[in-house]
Amino acid sequence: MERIFDLVIVGAGPAGMSAAIYASRAGLTTLMIEMGAPGGKLVKTHEISNYPGIETINGANLAMQMFNHSTSFSAQYVYGNVVNIVDGETKQVVCDDATYECKAIIIASGTQEKLLGIAGEEENVGRGVSYCAVCDGAFFKDEEVAVIGAGNAALEEALYLTQFASKVHVVMRRDVFRADQIIVDKIIQNEKVIVHQKYIPLEITSMNNKVDGIVVKSNEETETIKVKGIFPYIGADPMTHFVNHLDILNDHKYIIVDENMETKYKGIYGAGDVCQKGLRQVVTAVNDGAIAAQHAFHQIKGM
Amino acid sequence: MERIFDLVIVGAGPAGMSAAIYASRAGLTTLMIEMGAPGGKLVKTHEISNYPGIETINGANLAMQMFNHSTSFSAQYVYGNVVNIVDGETKQVVCDDATYECKAIIIASGTQEKLLGIAGEEENVGRGVSYCAVCDGAFFKDEEVAVIGAGNAALEEALYLTQFASKVHVVMRRDVFRADQIIVDKIIQNEKVIVHQKYIPLEITSMNNKVDGIVVKSNEETETIKVKGIFPYIGADPMTHFVNHLDILNDHKYIIVDENMETKYKGIYGAGDVCQKGLRQVVTAVNDGAIAAQHAFHQIKGM
Repeated sequence: MERIFDLVIVGAGPAGMSAAIYASRAGLTTLMIEMGAPGGKLVKTHEISNYPGIETINGANLAMQMFNHSTSFSAQYVYGNVVNIVDGETKQVVCDDATYECKAIIIASGTQEKLLGIAGEEENVGRGVSYCAVCDGAFFKDEEVAVIGAGNAALEEALYLTQFASKVHVVMRRDVFRADQIIVDKIIQNEKVIVHQKYIPLEITSMNNKVDGIVVKSNEETETIKVKGIFPYIGADPMTHFVNHLDILNDHKYIIVDENMETKYKGIYGAGDVCQKGLRQVVTAVNDGAIAAQHAFHQIKGM
Repeated sequence: MERIFDLVIVGAGPAGMSAAIYASRAGLTTLMIEMGAPGGKLVKTHEISNYPGIETINGANLAMQMFNHSTSFSAQYVYGNVVNIVDGETKQVVCDDATYECKAIIIASGTQEKLLGIAGEEENVGRGVSYCAVCDGAFFKDEEVAVIGAGNAALEEALYLTQFASKVHVVMRRDVFRADQIIVDKIIQNEKVIVHQKYIPLEITSMNNKVDGIVVKSNEETETIKVKGIFPYIGADPMTHFVNHLDILNDHKYIIVDENMETKYKGIYGAGDVCQKGLRQVVTAVNDGAIAAQHAFHQIKGM
C-alpha cells in the first residue's frame, strides 16, 4: 500500500467502524488499523441491551455485524500495532511493521482494562485471572469465582458468570453499586451471587500455578475467599501511548477533542472511549466516529 | 396519571427512544409523549444504511424496532401535543389535553420540513405537493415528479421515487451537490433522474385541483417542468414553539445545550435534531438521548 489514504482510522471498535461507514459512504479512501479482533470492547461483552433498535444481542455478533457493515462500501482493514503518529501536511500512522500515509487520522483506539495492582495478579493472568468473562467464563464450570468491581460492566459479567460458576462473589470497595437499577436488581435476586461490600482486595493466592483464592480486607480484618477464577472490572485506561508526544491528552491520558471530535492538530481526531467524555457506550462511540468522519470529509474536500 | 414522573421525554424519535431506554434501564419512571407515529423522521425515510450494525433497513422497520425496545423495560408512551413547558422544582409538560408533572424533561421534538415558500405550494399539499416521498411516492406510478433540493435527504428520496415515477427531476439552486459521493454517483447513473442545476423554483401550477407543473428560473429565463408530484427537501425547522418563552434557543430556534445535553435550566435537556449541532443523524440522536438520560438519572438520584 504505497498510496496516500484520505483517512486512516486507528482501532476498529464501534467508534472506528462507524467512522469507516461514514467516511467510505462519503467517498473517502479509508483504512482501519486494528491490533485485535474487530469490534473492540464489544467482543468481550456478553450481551448488549442498550443499542437502540437491537433489543438484545451478543457482543461478538454485534461486532461482526458492524464489521461487515464497515467494510461493505470501500473501507479497507489491516492488522497493525500502531506505535507512532506523525503530523504534517501528509500525516503518518506508524505501525511496528508498516507506515501508512494519509490526509486525516481518527484515533479510536479505546481503553484497556485496569489492573488491580496487587500481588499475585499479573503472574496469574491465564491461570485464573482474566479480564474477559465472556472469553474465559466457561472454563470455570461448577467452580467459585470472584468479580472485582461495582459498575455496570462488573455486574453484567458477574451475571454472565452465573451460567457456569457454582457461586459468583462480587467484591466491591464501596457500599453502593454504580450500575443501572435493572442490573442491580438482577444481582440481588440471583441466588448464585454473593455481594461483599466494603472489601478491599489485597492479594491473589495460588497453588501449583493455579489461582485458589483472593485475600480481602474489611474493617481491619483480613479473610480469604476461596475461588478458582478472578475477574477484575475496576475501570480502564485509554490506549494513547502512541500519541504521548502530541500534547493532546488530559491528566488521565484521554484525548481532548472539540465539538467536531478534532484535536488541536487539524485533521487529527479522537473518537469513542479513548476521548475525554462523560459517557462511554456503544451509542456514544458510533456518534463520535460519524462526527469525526463527516468533519474529515468536509476538511479534505474543502467544503 | 396523577403521579410525578422522574422523566418526561417530548418526542419519540431516535433521540427520545434512546433516552427512554437508558432512563428506564437506570430505574427512572419515564414517560414519552409523541404527537405523531413513534419513530420521528425514521418513519418518513425509505432506507437507512448508516446505522452501524444494521447494513440496510427500512426506516419504518427501524422505528418499530426502536419503539419496541424503548418500551421493553418500564417506559410509558402517550399521544400528546405539547404546548408548553413550565420550569420549577417540579416541572410541567403541558399538552393540549393533559399536564404531566416530572423531575426532569428531555426535549427531543425534532424538526419539521421547510416549505419552499412559493405560490401554489401550501394549497396543493395532498394534491401533488408532499414532504414525504416514502409516504406518497407510490401515488405517482409512471408519472413525472420533481424533488427540490441537493442534500442527502433530497437525493435519497429522488432515488426512492425512481421506483414509481417515469422521470424524477432534481431541481437545485446551486451547481454542487451537498450529499455523500455514493448517493451522488447513484443519482448521476440513474437514467430516470434529470438534474436541473442552478434553477430556482418560482411557482407550483395546478389544474382541476391537481399539481401539473413547477415554474423555475435559470439565467433570467423561466420555464415550466411538467410534473404531477413535487417533493421539497430543502431542510427543516426545529419544533421548539412550546419553549419559545424559555430563552434556550439560538437565532434559528434550535435548543442550546452543554456537553451533558442540558439547557441553562437545571433538569431540562435537549436531544437529537432539535439541538444546535453539526451533524443530524440517527447515530447522533441516540447518542444525545443516552447522555441526557444518564445525566438526568445522576441528577435525580443525587449521584
